Amino acid sequence: MSEKTIKPYLEQLAKLDFKNMYNNDFLHTWDKTTDELRAMYLVADALRNLRERNISTRIFQSGLAVSNFRDNSTRTRFSFASGTNLLGLQLQDLDEAKSQIAHGETVRETATMISFMADVIGIRDDKFIGEGDAYMKEVSESVEQSWRDGILDHRPTLVSLQSDSDHPTQSSADMLYLINEFGGLDNLKGKKVAVTWAYSPSYGKPLSCPQSLIMLLTRFGMNVTLAHPEGYDLMPELVKQAGVYAKESGATFTQAHTMEEAFEGADIVIPKSWAPYAAMEKRTKLYAAGDQEGIDKLEKELLAQNATHKDWCCTQKLMETTAKGQDTIYMHPLPADINGVSCEHGEVENEVFDYHRDGLYMEASYKPYAVAAMIFLQKAKDPIATLQALEDAATPRWNQA
Amino acid sequence: MSEKTIKPYLEQLAKLDFKNMYNNDFLHTWDKTTDELRAMYLVADALRNLRERNISTRIFQSGLAVSNFRDNSTRTRFSFASGTNLLGLQLQDLDEAKSQIAHGETVRETATMISFMADVIGIRDDKFIGEGDAYMKEVSESVEQSWRDGILDHRPTLVSLQSDSDHPTQSSADMLYLINEFGGLDNLKGKKVAVTWAYSPSYGKPLSCPQSLIMLLTRFGMNVTLAHPEGYDLMPELVKQAGVYAKESGATFTQAHTMEEAFEGADIVIPKSWAPYAAMEKRTKLYAAGDQEGIDKLEKELLAQNATHKDWCCTQKLMETTAKGQDTIYMHPLPADINGVSCEHGEVENEVFDYHRDGLYMEASYKPYAVAAMIFLQKAKDPIATLQALEDAATPRWNQA
Amino acid sequence: MSEKTIKPYLEQLAKLDFKNMYNNDFLHTWDKTTDELRAMYLVADALRNLRERNISTRIFQSGLAVSNFRDNSTRTRFSFASGTNLLGLQLQDLDEAKSQIAHGETVRETATMISFMADVIGIRDDKFIGEGDAYMKEVSESVEQSWRDGILDHRPTLVSLQSDSDHPTQSSADMLYLINEFGGLDNLKGKKVAVTWAYSPSYGKPLSCPQSLIMLLTRFGMNVTLAHPEGYDLMPELVKQAGVYAKESGATFTQAHTMEEAFEGADIVIPKSWAPYAAMEKRTKLYAAGDQEGIDKLEKELLAQNATHKDWCCTQKLMETTAKGQDTIYMHPLPADINGVSCEHGEVENEVFDYHRDGLYMEASYKPYAVAAMIFLQKAKDPIATLQALEDAATPRWNQA
Repeated sequence: MSEKTIKPYLEQLAKLDFKNMYNNDFLHTWDKTTDELRAMYLVADALRNLRERNISTRIFQSGLAVSNFRDNSTRTRFSFASGTNLLGLQLQDLDEAKSQIAHGETVRETATMISFMADVIGIRDDKFIGEGDAYMKEVSESVEQSWRDGILDHRPTLVSLQSDSDHPTQSSADMLYLINEFGGLDNLKGKKVAVTWAYSPSYGKPLSCPQSLIMLLTRFGMNVTLAHPEGYDLMPELVKQAGVYAKESGATFTQAHTMEEAFEGADIVIPKSWAPYAAMEKRTKLYAAGDQEGIDKLEKELLAQNATHKDWCCTQKLMETTAKGQDTIYMHPLPADINGVSCEHGEVENEVFDYHRDGLYMEASYKPYAVAAMIFLQKAKDPIATLQALEDAATPRWNQA
Repeated sequence: MSEKTIKPYLEQLAKLDFKNMYNNDFLHTWDKTTDELRAMYLVADALRNLRERNISTRIFQSGLAVSNFRDNSTRTRFSFASGTNLLGLQLQDLDEAKSQIAHGETVRETATMISFMADVIGIRDDKFIGEGDAYMKEVSESVEQSWRDGILDHRPTLVSLQSDSDHPTQSSADMLYLINEFGGLDNLKGKKVAVTWAYSPSYGKPLSCPQSLIMLLTRFGMNVTLAHPEGYDLMPELVKQAGVYAKESGATFTQAHTMEEAFEGADIVIPKSWAPYAAMEKRTKLYAAGDQEGIDKLEKELLAQNATHKDWCCTQKLMETTAKGQDTIYMHPLPADINGVSCEHGEVENEVFDYHRDGLYMEASYKPYAVAAMIFLQKAKDPIATLQALEDAATPRWNQA
Repeated sequence: MSEKTIKPYLEQLAKLDFKNMYNNDFLHTWDKTTDELRAMYLVADALRNLRERNISTRIFQSGLAVSNFRDNSTRTRFSFASGTNLLGLQLQDLDEAKSQIAHGETVRETATMISFMADVIGIRDDKFIGEGDAYMKEVSESVEQSWRDGILDHRPTLVSLQSDSDHPTQSSADMLYLINEFGGLDNLKGKKVAVTWAYSPSYGKPLSCPQSLIMLLTRFGMNVTLAHPEGYDLMPELVKQAGVYAKESGATFTQAHTMEEAFEGADIVIPKSWAPYAAMEKRTKLYAAGDQEGIDKLEKELLAQNATHKDWCCTQKLMETTAKGQDTIYMHPLPADINGVSCEHGEVENEVFDYHRDGLYMEASYKPYAVAAMIFLQKAKDPIATLQALEDAATPRWNQA
């Protein structure tokens, strides 16, 4: 963050092909080329640089950023509020409980109705397997259609704020953190990363976090080991694709069945609880069938199954086996289940968490910039020239005489 | 929207007398002269023209737009958010559930307390006959009083976002749609419009939509036929006044008791469910008396009464009898009860709705501009000069290098 | 407010030492020197002057003002929305019910997560003795730590929107009202103020209002009499400190046990209900222990105790005994319990309240400016130069050609 100018970022941007990001959505990292992802990281860092030098990055005089959170959120909600505000948009939340959506209105209709002055729409829909992606796709197609039909004067672009398959703003923040920690994206090549399951007293945490990681890290040459207890599989097609990505980038993608194996010699560890895919699919079907008894029964089974894996905890002892011992990078999207803090037994020992607190918070600090960069690339036809113009104008964000 | 300049709108504006709109409220269309309404349509179209040419129409550097939704809303909520944002105001919702209003505070006090930096207040209060209008009037008088007393440094103006009698932002959007469809307000003269009741599985939909239409369309020379089953009367004084308006504008206002009669040869059809006025009055009294048993009984009666009118549906067959058959303009404030989509039997056949989808969405797209135009005329002492200054400044709303 | 320039305010500001307010919090008035408080009043009046002359006081092009209301609020919510909007910030409410805070996340973590682009954080937490102050302190220390650790690029400053001990934005608005009513802060010296308890049919109203008053008014030379029924004590250390403040400013601080005694010859009366300190402490402990039965029992006792003091009402008869009779200044933070309006027996007779309505609303009108001034002094390193620059730029807040 110590650069005195964004010139270095712009020079790197000039070498990449990312023209298709303009007027497009950001729903999964795997919809994007590596050039496009690289461009997004560079724009995020450039926006951060400008803001830290108190230069306004407002490109909108007015306009709405519409959010639709179908699940609770603090971090992502504030990241979306922050990132859109940084560009000059006003947040308008679609609270479905206060709307007339229950009327039986189609997605296409609601999507159009909220979009007459929306420049961007952010959606979190991660609760049921298959539903989040389907919903976002439908919203995207709806506003695209309304734009083509001349109803909307421009096309509001979408940013996924977490679906059932991917959590792109989270994994992009993770990447930005690693890029800045290791001094450049190319320095990540060959680093060993442990993406592992960890025990939590709750059950049913989204699969999208680990999936997002294995699908992204493998593309930039990192050697990823995925480890989880038997039965805690991720979506099989994503696991398969992570292997393909690893191969393409000259890296490895390995599966293991113990934390020990994954942590051994790792440069980065990312242990976190998630639900078994098969169980989540089953739950989605029970929910669709309105079978509450079945859901309750399933929950009991899952909690019992979960309880047999309390040993999957990120301990100081385990950290010792990693590349730099306690100093190896430990990451988590937060909030974590911390032994003796938020629960008795959880994902991580308090000593480990506390030792890495600054890093974890720094990791989170990139999310607003990831959001802003995704939107910037959707909205600026010539992002390099627009960033340069912002730096040249040097309008103070926070104006003091 | 293809005009390259707003000059034509400004030239037409220059011929109208609308000076009384400055610093005034917009609670009902019938509070306004036809010149004032014409001015509002012109300003709405001018604002839309500027926005579509990417010219900022921000006239506020700071300031609040306060909303108070006493009933659910999606379209109007986003229209108010959009229209006020277009002018530079920040939306601040008064959520009565999170406030101290239950304390027994007077309307005058609350109205003043939320208004110290409010430039405009938007209210939806449409649930009980007589209450919405009364509440808005009290809020208006309260802030007027506080302004005269020197407590408020300016007078926040009100925009009705739907009361029990009128829904001016909806019917104004409808007018804007028709003006643009027919190529000018004067081209609407002599057009036959069917404003008809239609069956919905729910009961108790607001009277304000059809009332707003018959009170507005008749003023601009359209021949309106109002049709509904026996018992589904609108407020009698409004029905009477619609007849007076029709006479004044050289048009006709007819009542019919079948959809067939109203649709026959119509240039525009607007079929929609509403509740019987007498029943709504009764319900208001039961509610005031806290008679939940009575309300439940009334609801049962109304649903039974409703169910006898399932034949009031906008079908393809009925559309054939209109001036242009399937191509005759079909309008609805949305969301509609669509056969086989949102319900089994509803207001309209899916084929009709689907065929007119683009028009319906376009109709809705004018609402943010109707809101913005109402506020613009309340807040700009010389709207023509202010619009001209905005066009001359040509500050990009969405700034790209 | 009739000044044609803010020069007089700036000249007075130049004589004061308030440099420590920069980058600092505003949690209690007693954390501040009298110079700092004087500076805040001057900046509030200067901001009001600029706004009333339609000069924009926006110092932020983007940035968030985060609010966290752990108790209901209308006035303070809108004051915070207004004051922050006046400076160019966008409000983002942290709705704990919609967040993941229940997950067991630490205060430090949440505080950091919402602060990546937060310039200011406003908190209301007034329900339980000891908790509000402790929570705000923890949030403040958390963001300070995250800023020192390089996680946050600047330090978000805090404004207390009411804790269990103090209500600084309210008492600052009260001071601003008095300053403007009496034509200057120095004119308040020697004025007799009655800060008295009054009966309310509810129980458990915050102690922070009267505490805030006795701790502030005594510092500026006002002779304060505190009166309440036996058992309705305030926090003893604050009562003691009010005496010290009075002594330091050459004023008196007296305690009485009847309204009559306090009102006798008073220049200003501020009668309001509050809960007994000891009972509130007990309630806090019962709440912590989860003893709902105990809480219910306590509530019954308190309501019974309360009911014996219905004679503590601000009547016309009592007003007669004050310095100027009915014209003596009567103040209340609102909403008040008014006889025959919001309850049968309350804090004040309707005749008294109604006679003073304009003054009460004017009192409230200063709160947005108190909020804005606190933030302005936290965010402008050279407030005098920054205010001067705003006046010189003379950008219209509300732009009309």
